[in-house]
Amino acid sequence: MDAIDVIVTKRDGHRLSPQQIDWVIDAYTRGEVADEQMAALAMAIVLNGMDRAEVTRWTEAMIRSGERMDFSALDRPTTDKHSTGGVGDKITLPLAPLVAACGAAVPQLSGRGLGHTGGTLDKLESIPGWRASLTPEQMLSVLREVGAVVCAAGSGLAPADRKLYALRDVTGTVESIPLIASSIMSKKIAEGTGALVLDVKVGSGAFMKTVERARELAETMVAIGTDHGVKTVALLTAMDRPLGRAVGNALEVAEAVEVLAGGGPPDVVELTLTLAREMLAAAGLDAADPADALADGSAMDVWRRMIRAQGGDPDAPLPVARESHTLTAPASGVLTGLDAYAVGVAAWRLGAGRARKEDPVSPGAGVVCHAAPGEEVRAGQPLLTLHTDEPARFERALQALDGAITIEPEGSPDLLPLVIDRIA
Amino acid sequence: MDAIDVIVTKRDGHRLSPQQIDWVIDAYTRGEVADEQMAALAMAIVLNGMDRAEVTRWTEAMIRSGERMDFSALDRPTTDKHSTGGVGDKITLPLAPLVAACGAAVPQLSGRGLGHTGGTLDKLESIPGWRASLTPEQMLSVLREVGAVVCAAGSGLAPADRKLYALRDVTGTVESIPLIASSIMSKKIAEGTGALVLDVKVGSGAFMKTVERARELAETMVAIGTDHGVKTVALLTAMDRPLGRAVGNALEVAEAVEVLAGGGPPDVVELTLTLAREMLAAAGLDAADPADALADGSAMDVWRRMIRAQGGDPDAPLPVARESHTLTAPASGVLTGLDAYAVGVAAWRLGAGRARKEDPVSPGAGVVCHAAPGEEVRAGQPLLTLHTDEPARFERALQALDGAITIEPEGSPDLLPLVIDRIA
Repeated sequence: MDAIDVIVTKRDGHRLSPQQIDWVIDAYTRGEVADEQMAALAMAIVLNGMDRAEVTRWTEAMIRSGERMDFSALDRPTTDKHSTGGVGDKITLPLAPLVAACGAAVPQLSGRGLGHTGGTLDKLESIPGWRASLTPEQMLSVLREVGAVVCAAGSGLAPADRKLYALRDVTGTVESIPLIASSIMSKKIAEGTGALVLDVKVGSGAFMKTVERARELAETMVAIGTDHGVKTVALLTAMDRPLGRAVGNALEVAEAVEVLAGGGPPDVVELTLTLAREMLAAAGLDAADPADALADGSAMDVWRRMIRAQGGDPDAPLPVARESHTLTAPASGVLTGLDAYAVGVAAWRLGAGRARKEDPVSPGAGVVCHAAPGEEVRAGQPLLTLHTDEPARFERALQALDGAITIEPEGSPDLLPLVIDRIA
Repeated sequence: MDAIDVIVTKRDGHRLSPQQIDWVIDAYTRGEVADEQMAALAMAIVLNGMDRAEVTRWTEAMIRSGERMDFSALDRPTTDKHSTGGVGDKITLPLAPLVAACGAAVPQLSGRGLGHTGGTLDKLESIPGWRASLTPEQMLSVLREVGAVVCAAGSGLAPADRKLYALRDVTGTVESIPLIASSIMSKKIAEGTGALVLDVKVGSGAFMKTVERARELAETMVAIGTDHGVKTVALLTAMDRPLGRAVGNALEVAEAVEVLAGGGPPDVVELTLTLAREMLAAAGLDAADPADALADGSAMDVWRRMIRAQGGDPDAPLPVARESHTLTAPASGVLTGLDAYAVGVAAWRLGAGRARKEDPVSPGAGVVCHAAPGEEVRAGQPLLTLHTDEPARFERALQALDGAITIEPEGSPDLLPLVIDRIA
């Protein structure tokens, strides 16, 4: 077997054999297949696709490139959620402790933000003292004692995916459903969860801009999970406007704590409960009602223990950015549009996100929305507040928001439903 | 501009702008665009193509990556030929001195063989003393004094093509007409010839297996040449059977010398004269008849001076392989098939060719065909003689020939015409 044979098979529109897939992933991980060869293969996959059997095998080969965690010794079922990423998507923060409070174990390996979408680890790191890195033993111990753990994936998990993802990032080969699906699923399956709920975001602030593409991605991931014996369900959810009111690391933590305290924006509460019910059902725990666990404070208790278990102080004040600037409504009427992508880019430019993996993020930076699409606004009322440590950043953030806000004298906005579809 | 923009443009099926092409070729030559990025772009080009404007600009950018030779100071017009490569294709050897004897200057930068096709430099290097490397000044001097020069391209000519070709070779991205055409034409245009005749081979022993693909390549190359002000003509010629009787380095030199002496196989003579007439016409020298220059010995005189000018001894005996093995006809009848590819692979395995650029070749190794398709043969008569320095090589060479020879009781072979088409 050699790399050129594998590349030419896919280039010419044929199906890769299981042997070809196993060999090329293993040889690439070991450095025997060169980056330029894998880049050519990735482009051939982007343009010629992979079918279900190929993508399942590709995922399996990436899992086998490293270790696979095993939580079967726990006395409760494991269940996890993965979001494809959006603007203001802090759902993991209230969700993981909520589901743990209902009797499941949530072993979540999470990532950092890149570009206009945030990362769960960046958000949690705005809590003074909290650290993302745990050994597998520490992770198991937090899971056993608290029921939920959110931490960084170790380098031993799906190393082929790590290497391939970095390569795709610089070679224009990110946008392929088989490659995206296998990348996500290899990490989630290697993470050892027994059940998985996928939150596939749709709209301007999401990676998938259309319902059609999002559905294709969701179906591919559900197929991979099912083929690997993981109970997998996907929801398509709205990302045409920001989720909740807060976009930015500490700002989103504060909003998540509001939800755990029984308040918070209605869309964040609704999506948190919907995903919690899916995660519990997938784990065979249909009896518990997560709304009760929010109402009685038990989810908040788990949150506080979860943050403390990783060195964080849940009572410490969160970082606040040094400067702020408020945009007001230019007219009275109905807020019919608040573009998720524009708000995400503005928050990124204010310092909440990073352009390159190595960049630091500013914990206090971001955007707070004072109105949600569909609400009436009066001329002169605050619409958005921008937060940053560096006032020089306001200008480019404001440029990103140019045209992102629509106010009409009357009518209702043309928005996606919060939950668009469910794929099981 | 960045590499990902350029890759994504072609990945998504759009046309590359002149600025994108200029930038990416220049940045790749300088090492700013990485091999994995160029590999992804090359695969996107293989699968999504390039139109005439793109391929002309791509070629131009590769020419501008290095120096461009200039022979306008010569007192005669320059004209050259390029063959896409085949089995037994020694045409350059008699052709260059023949065209020079008719009044043109032939500045040919040539290559080495790889795989089952031979290279002109390997063939000439079987002549004792002959050396392929000349400085541009030496090349001009030989051209001025002799009228024809065949030598290796220096590293200053189209360095982008050199780098890109090596990359395509290991990434399954060789088989793209725009990339093949621009690679060939960038070197030929940088070489400084005023007129160019392309011999595009078709058949099992050629890179292009079908007339359709060969025509597409020929049309693309003629368009590039024309767009660059080089008078360019292409012939599609047969490579379903070997050209001439000899396949192998010294064996082909001997056959070329036979042609220059007024003998040689009829197909080699016919193709040499046809190409010579095209080269002379393209250079505006229609008056001279190359058949006269063969008959009166003037082409042979130029050959001898050309070989001597590069240190070779035209009178020295050519190397002979240590061992030979003859295959005889298993039946009487008409030789209806002698597969070019199989004979090429057999010669390669006997030591005439190389698998990797660094490998040496054996000057005496190869195959001599004692009959050509269409001729009657008698059971037991010699059909092919295999020559090698290492008798252990006979077995795999014979395997390559398995099924390559067809003898039928009567009838005529289904062969391509020697000259299939002409594209101007």
